[in-house]
Amino acid sequence: MASTNGDTNGHSVKHDSRFDPDFTRHVINATGPKATPRMRKVMGSFIQHIHDFARENELTVEEWMAGVEMINWAGKMSDEKRNEGQLMCDVIGLESLVDEITFKLAAETNDAATASAILGPFFRHDAPVLENESTIVHGVDDGEITYMHGIVRDLKTKQPVAGAWIDVWQASTNGLYEQQDENQIEHNLRGKFKTDENGRYAYYCLRPTPYPVPADGPAGKLLKLLDRHPYRPAHIHLIVQREGYKPVTTQIFDSKGDYLEDDSVFAVKDSLLVDFVPLKGNPKATLELNYPILIAPIEKST
Amino acid sequence: MASTNGDTNGHSVKHDSRFDPDFTRHVINATGPKATPRMRKVMGSFIQHIHDFARENELTVEEWMAGVEMINWAGKMSDEKRNEGQLMCDVIGLESLVDEITFKLAAETNDAATASAILGPFFRHDAPVLENESTIVHGVDDGEITYMHGIVRDLKTKQPVAGAWIDVWQASTNGLYEQQDENQIEHNLRGKFKTDENGRYAYYCLRPTPYPVPADGPAGKLLKLLDRHPYRPAHIHLIVQREGYKPVTTQIFDSKGDYLEDDSVFAVKDSLLVDFVPLKGNPKATLELNYPILIAPIEKST
Repeated sequence: MASTNGDTNGHSVKHDSRFDPDFTRHVINATGPKATPRMRKVMGSFIQHIHDFARENELTVEEWMAGVEMINWAGKMSDEKRNEGQLMCDVIGLESLVDEITFKLAAETNDAATASAILGPFFRHDAPVLENESTIVHGVDDGEITYMHGIVRDLKTKQPVAGAWIDVWQASTNGLYEQQDENQIEHNLRGKFKTDENGRYAYYCLRPTPYPVPADGPAGKLLKLLDRHPYRPAHIHLIVQREGYKPVTTQIFDSKGDYLEDDSVFAVKDSLLVDFVPLKGNPKATLELNYPILIAPIEKST
Repeated sequence: MASTNGDTNGHSVKHDSRFDPDFTRHVINATGPKATPRMRKVMGSFIQHIHDFARENELTVEEWMAGVEMINWAGKMSDEKRNEGQLMCDVIGLESLVDEITFKLAAETNDAATASAILGPFFRHDAPVLENESTIVHGVDDGEITYMHGIVRDLKTKQPVAGAWIDVWQASTNGLYEQQDENQIEHNLRGKFKTDENGRYAYYCLRPTPYPVPADGPAGKLLKLLDRHPYRPAHIHLIVQREGYKPVTTQIFDSKGDYLEDDSVFAVKDSLLVDFVPLKGNPKATLELNYPILIAPIEKST
């Protein structure tokens, strides 16, 4: 049924004798001489895989069009506050996979810093800058307030890094990020904190709770079609960055929470599990999370 | 470097030892028991191919996000008059491929009717119903008017089929469909015609001219990134349908036109080439196109 040939771009071309054996090669070879080598490689491979996928499943026009409509729907729902195309990738594990690839490529040239995890579709670039020891929690009555703090250190020297930025965001106890919820104030449960001269950051946040990915878009529909639950385990998003260091995008997960084994977007890693511990003597919080962070200096080319 | 294992859904799982060998299987196996068998098969295969694609190319977060942004852009540009998600699929040959697959599956259960071709993104469901012998051309000064006519016949009996609907649409001489061009009247160069008691249809249209796919969206951007020209060979779109028959979606191509070998959306088939011939003695047209159409009756299950 199938034979394999090379095409002029060096891809392996799989043939199914029922369908035109030259078609995919013809499409791939349409790429012109001025395309970058990376674009030629990546799109050639993408075309090959998508065509193989269509042939192997004998995908019909109606099925393909249903996919096109989901993609267009994703774009229509997306704006500066929401990225549904990204969320669709998340529920098929693609963001988590490219995160793993990117992190591994970085790790092969340097020591491994704090493990990364997916950005998720609810990040906002314009979170407010806040003072250390302040809170990101406003108007939440049913949450467990957590005093989260730690020291950011240089992966190589292990010395504290002053002036590093911690971007933190999390959903509220009702499972909604502020941009999804008109009852939350703008930028609730988000903030940017800068490490002090001792590399220390500190703020008050919520102990996170599980929440479902939104059911009103194509990602939610895809989960229903796949008979999967939509829940994400309880987590806090972090981006840590400083000039001269590789930025780290990560999520930390409550080690005692549900859905750690079946996260709907497949983002959990053992190295990202953290323990929320009881805190005594602080009227502002009942829990504490000490979370040290390592960031890798960018190597000077020698 | 690579080994192959089966997963519980019966897919072949390719492993690259640098990345988590269990991840793709884990994502595929998250599909629940109530997913339809077809959904399980198609999405399992899609996840496998997309993950393999990401690993084989060591796709980075930045590259993946560039793809997400193109998908969201496609959705935002799409509306009832334009389908940019579809157009992106077209430039990588996917619509043409699923059309081939769908047509072949139909041909394996019945005789082959008039060859199909892709719908394209400029079809509108609300084209006006017109009388035979009327024109779809309004306000075009520089076109070659063509008298197009023919008889629709039953593939099996070869008898004329009365009451079949011919839906025709084409771009104007400036390369634009009416919904892309504010200088054309609504529904210009579109119409729905019904075959008479002798199975005959007839109308005046343009000899089609080549045109580029739109450059202002992600499909146009993708073509630029691939260093490909955006031109489509001159063609007329047709959908032919009648109750009791399989609908036919097709495009017919001017056999003397350019870009037949390198159509930007890969839709040309030899069986769809037609000849426009000089017409004498008709003040309304200088060319004639006699285009007979075969449609396949839907088999009664016995």
